[in-house]
Amino acid sequence: MQNITVLSGGMGGARFLQGLLHGIASGALPGVSPDARVSVVANTADDIWVHGLKVCPDLDTVMYTLGDGIDLDRGWGRREETWSVKTELAEYGVEPTWFGLGDRDVATHLVRTQMLEAGYPLSQVTEALCRRWQPGVRLLPMTDDRVETHVAIPDPDSPSGRRVVHFQEYWVRLRASVPAETVLFVGLEDSTPGPGVVEAIAGADMVVLPPSNPVVSVGTILGVPGIREAVAATSAPVVGLSPIVGASHVRGMAEQMLTSIGVEVSAAAVGLHYGARSAGGVLDGWLVDERDADQLDRLHEAGLAAAAVPLMMTDHDATAAMAAAAVELVRR
Amino acid sequence: MQNITVLSGGMGGARFLQGLLHGIASGALPGVSPDARVSVVANTADDIWVHGLKVCPDLDTVMYTLGDGIDLDRGWGRREETWSVKTELAEYGVEPTWFGLGDRDVATHLVRTQMLEAGYPLSQVTEALCRRWQPGVRLLPMTDDRVETHVAIPDPDSPSGRRVVHFQEYWVRLRASVPAETVLFVGLEDSTPGPGVVEAIAGADMVVLPPSNPVVSVGTILGVPGIREAVAATSAPVVGLSPIVGASHVRGMAEQMLTSIGVEVSAAAVGLHYGARSAGGVLDGWLVDERDADQLDRLHEAGLAAAAVPLMMTDHDATAAMAAAAVELVRR
Repeated sequence: MQNITVLSGGMGGARFLQGLLHGIASGALPGVSPDARVSVVANTADDIWVHGLKVCPDLDTVMYTLGDGIDLDRGWGRREETWSVKTELAEYGVEPTWFGLGDRDVATHLVRTQMLEAGYPLSQVTEALCRRWQPGVRLLPMTDDRVETHVAIPDPDSPSGRRVVHFQEYWVRLRASVPAETVLFVGLEDSTPGPGVVEAIAGADMVVLPPSNPVVSVGTILGVPGIREAVAATSAPVVGLSPIVGASHVRGMAEQMLTSIGVEVSAAAVGLHYGARSAGGVLDGWLVDERDADQLDRLHEAGLAAAAVPLMMTDHDATAAMAAAAVELVRR
Repeated sequence: MQNITVLSGGMGGARFLQGLLHGIASGALPGVSPDARVSVVANTADDIWVHGLKVCPDLDTVMYTLGDGIDLDRGWGRREETWSVKTELAEYGVEPTWFGLGDRDVATHLVRTQMLEAGYPLSQVTEALCRRWQPGVRLLPMTDDRVETHVAIPDPDSPSGRRVVHFQEYWVRLRASVPAETVLFVGLEDSTPGPGVVEAIAGADMVVLPPSNPVVSVGTILGVPGIREAVAATSAPVVGLSPIVGASHVRGMAEQMLTSIGVEVSAAAVGLHYGARSAGGVLDGWLVDERDADQLDRLHEAGLAAAAVPLMMTDHDATAAMAAAAVELVRR
């Protein structure tokens, strides 16, 4: 295999990509060339305009993580960050005060915003930012169009009994601690795939759905008209790794999001939610954690190749082993 | 006196205003009420758009200085500043790298830029920023229009033999170390006075030209069509303080700017450049430093009240004494 395309969200996807690149470089992936090229189609639906700056959390998390600029403890934002801008904005009393806007990070957003306002599409801006970060992958926004995930939450003070907040507010300010009644993807239906996205899927030797959020990360990528169709049609095998282990997510907020769309919180249910390509879905294979081995029958019955392996990304070797298992699953 | 209006540039003007407010509050100014109100018409011609941010150096220097947020050593920018944004922008290789963009300062520019882009005029933005800083004066941009000072410098590599740079580049990057062949005020002729500016001059009991740069600070303020006329017509006395002591400026770059417009670098020459109101100029009185007492005759001959006093703003008391001498000069 020479070309691997990954549909990625932020933290989980970025960590998986680190292990994937490690596995490729170390020759640990069966049948994958050590100089194989990885393309990443990244979710942009959690992007937000804040204080006049265009912030792309998932693109930046992938870029900073693979470019060795990420804060490893937080898992997002820049290492050795300072917070003067955020502190001062709060002193001015301007909202939002809850968004994690670090000073080093602000520079990225300034460069991006200025390029966007000069007329460059997000894909070209991302390419320019990656010239500094050299992430070792081709990083492609899922779309150059503005798409934003909003979440309806209960609000007894509102006449309608609910309130719609940006996904970032739900996630960062509310810490996903209230039920998400509905998840709305503003602009998604009218968006088109970013340059190179469909080609990266069509021309891949393998397409991977990493353990990213199946609703607000991979779900939005697949929701861009043309991308699900490209995944369904590609001649490459498509394999995914469950973000749910046991009955809960490993990181992030997949539980809340799955509940909001009425999908059971289990590894098998997420695989079945994506569905087998043979039955109109997007997957050929689905990896679950060894603790969820009892769910393999359900997956097999649905026409999916499936296996149970350790799915905890504790270090690069463990993650590379997951990637190797994914390759192995669909090479059969 | 109840109303004093000051036409101010950045550092010199801000320091003068500190002493003026100190003098008013301490009752050190003859005939000036301790609750007298100070309006500041501030130069905006050295404003610059940088990295997508609208930066107003003179407005901010006045606001930070009077709001006790200024870095006292530098005389500009914020105290306890950090520089992560600037460092990162340089890592991205985006120009300009020479502009002094501190992190705390960036927050001010973000608030300003976002308000401007939402449609608020600079005067209302400035009022909003001052709600935090409480500078103790009414801070009025000379105009809400975009005016920018550019400087033509020699450039042997250019076909024309010269190159035009923004005033900030001349001042910050080149440190005014090359001759300014021409100073160009882009947009000045088409600008109109900001809200309240003409009224602040017409309704004043005294108008003061502090020891700011007579070309690129006070000169641009007076260059806004309508402002020079308002100063010439006000019933209030108009008094200025020389930024030149001996044959050089105390701070800033008045020497280079005076030379570029063909005005001798001396206290008297600057006073004569402003000119006596009785002869079509803007001044009634002009204070020079005691070292320049030999120049008083030239000023008297031109119809100006003039006196020689210590003009070094070494501390608030010394500056208040200068303000008191200015009041005294035009009360006669």
